[in-house]
Amino acid sequence: MTMQMVRELGEAAHLAARALALVVPEVKNRALMAIADALWNGRAEILSANEIDLAEARLQHHSSAVLDRLALDERRIEKMAAGVRQVAALSDPVGEITRMWPRPNGLLVGRMRVPLGVIGVIYEARPGVTADAAALCLKSGNAVILKGGREAIRSNRVISSLLADAAMGSGLPKGCVAFIDSVDREAVTHLLQLSGLVDLIIPRGGEELIRAVQRTSTIPILAHDKGLCHTYVDEGADLVMAEEIAFNAKVDRPGVCNAMESLLVHERVAPLFLPRIVGRLQEAGVEIRGCPRTRALVQGIVSAAEVDWDTEYLDLILSVKVVGSFEEAVAHIAAHGSGLAEAIVTADHSRAMRFLREVDAGAVFVNASTRFTDGGEFGMGAEMGISTQKLHARGPVGLTELTCEKFIVMGDGQVRDSTK
Amino acid sequence: MTMQMVRELGEAAHLAARALALVVPEVKNRALMAIADALWNGRAEILSANEIDLAEARLQHHSSAVLDRLALDERRIEKMAAGVRQVAALSDPVGEITRMWPRPNGLLVGRMRVPLGVIGVIYEARPGVTADAAALCLKSGNAVILKGGREAIRSNRVISSLLADAAMGSGLPKGCVAFIDSVDREAVTHLLQLSGLVDLIIPRGGEELIRAVQRTSTIPILAHDKGLCHTYVDEGADLVMAEEIAFNAKVDRPGVCNAMESLLVHERVAPLFLPRIVGRLQEAGVEIRGCPRTRALVQGIVSAAEVDWDTEYLDLILSVKVVGSFEEAVAHIAAHGSGLAEAIVTADHSRAMRFLREVDAGAVFVNASTRFTDGGEFGMGAEMGISTQKLHARGPVGLTELTCEKFIVMGDGQVRDSTK
Repeated sequence: MTMQMVRELGEAAHLAARALALVVPEVKNRALMAIADALWNGRAEILSANEIDLAEARLQHHSSAVLDRLALDERRIEKMAAGVRQVAALSDPVGEITRMWPRPNGLLVGRMRVPLGVIGVIYEARPGVTADAAALCLKSGNAVILKGGREAIRSNRVISSLLADAAMGSGLPKGCVAFIDSVDREAVTHLLQLSGLVDLIIPRGGEELIRAVQRTSTIPILAHDKGLCHTYVDEGADLVMAEEIAFNAKVDRPGVCNAMESLLVHERVAPLFLPRIVGRLQEAGVEIRGCPRTRALVQGIVSAAEVDWDTEYLDLILSVKVVGSFEEAVAHIAAHGSGLAEAIVTADHSRAMRFLREVDAGAVFVNASTRFTDGGEFGMGAEMGISTQKLHARGPVGLTELTCEKFIVMGDGQVRDSTK
Repeated sequence: MTMQMVRELGEAAHLAARALALVVPEVKNRALMAIADALWNGRAEILSANEIDLAEARLQHHSSAVLDRLALDERRIEKMAAGVRQVAALSDPVGEITRMWPRPNGLLVGRMRVPLGVIGVIYEARPGVTADAAALCLKSGNAVILKGGREAIRSNRVISSLLADAAMGSGLPKGCVAFIDSVDREAVTHLLQLSGLVDLIIPRGGEELIRAVQRTSTIPILAHDKGLCHTYVDEGADLVMAEEIAFNAKVDRPGVCNAMESLLVHERVAPLFLPRIVGRLQEAGVEIRGCPRTRALVQGIVSAAEVDWDTEYLDLILSVKVVGSFEEAVAHIAAHGSGLAEAIVTADHSRAMRFLREVDAGAVFVNASTRFTDGGEFGMGAEMGISTQKLHARGPVGLTELTCEKFIVMGDGQVRDSTK
């Protein structure tokens, strides 16, 4: 796709966004329900496109993880449609007056939530993201430009055209769901140059994608970076609880960003705790890479290299370290954590409070699994991803995080006198 | 300054920020009071440095506007110190739990306000920004790296060293107020490469500075762009009120970003309104550049060129356009406004509501002067500038906007079952 073609998509989306910002909730919700129906009714078409994508991916010898992310079946399409209906059911953030206050001169000053405008979503193999991302953007009043991974191009082409047709057919402005139908990387570069037309870029994918986008984009980014999550088992912790939480954080779904990658254990509880948890994790197929003190307590563990403390395995592998103090655990997290989610298991109230305050991450947990780091689990409804940056939104990105607040001011003739 | 030197400042600030984030309000406030005292007690030193800056600027034939921004006197230093004391008196945003809600599984999920980390502030001739910016950053728990304009280098050097000494002397961590003591542009480029150490860059200055920072920075930016503000006088508006508001928006302080640059007048009221407001503005020394319909109604006005509708004069110049409808006014604002502040003068309730909803700007006014676009006037206390971007903060940037919210989650052993 040439720069000119991408720019035209951007201009159409920009125009559409102005109109979409003013569409009432009922119309947006009706469009989302129509989109859900269109996905389900178009499942045969989606699945046959997906089959070709899968065949091609197998020919390219993609990993089983990629193939799994790419593959669709009726159940997954049903889930996709259900996800869109769920978004329709969420309350509409647009137009909400979050606060309003009077000034001594009689002015009423308030803050009104409004859409961001046009959101570019750049993602990888998962075709489900196409419907997801579009639904969240439309509901929050934003036009969306979708750019999926090359592996899923045929699936995404079908899905996005079902989305766009259903949206337009329900009265949403033309151009509000755009799809960059291209497998070359140039197209992404073009998209990232559309500042003034595109208001936000959300890269959803691996570290490499994010870095590339950060280097190139002239548009603000909401980055979902890697998840290097720790669980710290404190001195005096309930070790049964600690075992459940640590096991869950590692094993429940090891391939996702909120899974635990490093376990930190206070030296006082390590002799009792480590043999138990390591045994249980190993039974579940987890490879343990331990610090010297861990290896002294449990036999037959490989040694953790320096690089292990900074590695997001996304797999059944865990690095384990014995620490001498709460402070050492917090310092280790500050040095190696990715700022996504961090947990402490403790029975001590003041250390729980300190952990909440002192650990700088999108989500900080006391006595719960980092696996809960999720918009749905937090009660925010569906999510666009999890932001590891500090600006604009941190942690799960829901509908609200796809809007911004403008000031509104109501007066009856007030003027300002600078000489006063 | 070499890259290595700037990086060292960044590393020190990064370390300082971790400590500063945990400093209690009392200590921060004591430090701010000490800073205010230090500024006042150091006034002789500041003024003699400022005199050399001024002499140099005169030699370089800088404009009187630059000289005015650069010049300090006892009154301005007193105001600077008073500004810092005012910031000390504001309520501390750090640690605030903005919301907390229970989940069905017993988890308590909340949002806690925390500092951003390290903020780099890049500004131009005004040495008062040095104290201002530092006070706002410190109060919100952020370390600050200051990079002022070359014209004010001697004044800024003295001021920032007074700030840093007073901060450290009051128990704030070393390195929390850093000053890039350099007049070369390379130093800015170095600063903009410190992603991972610096969390936010705030460029305060002209369009050229902002564009350069946007092009170069790998760090997120909070941009204070230009202000191209409109006042639209609606059909049926109270013309006495309209005259007061328009006159104030243009004349009260024409050199600032929230001053009006373009006046839009509905054709129904133009014949009555334009002669009055134009006469009064001309008496106040304002040059009027009108559209053809304006020139037909008032004699002796120069013609507005296309470029006038996109020009931020920052001076006693005003472009004036007669529009055929409310919709034309809103469309003109969408096409030419800079997203800072826009105002309508109207007696019609439904058009007032529509203007608030349909106009996309940081601050949207009904029946009041755009000159109120200011953190102080909005009741937010002092401000770091006015953001014209949509991400993170829009409109006046106060203390709250220099923080972010992380999620905190308190449980008693909850784990997640993905199979459910």
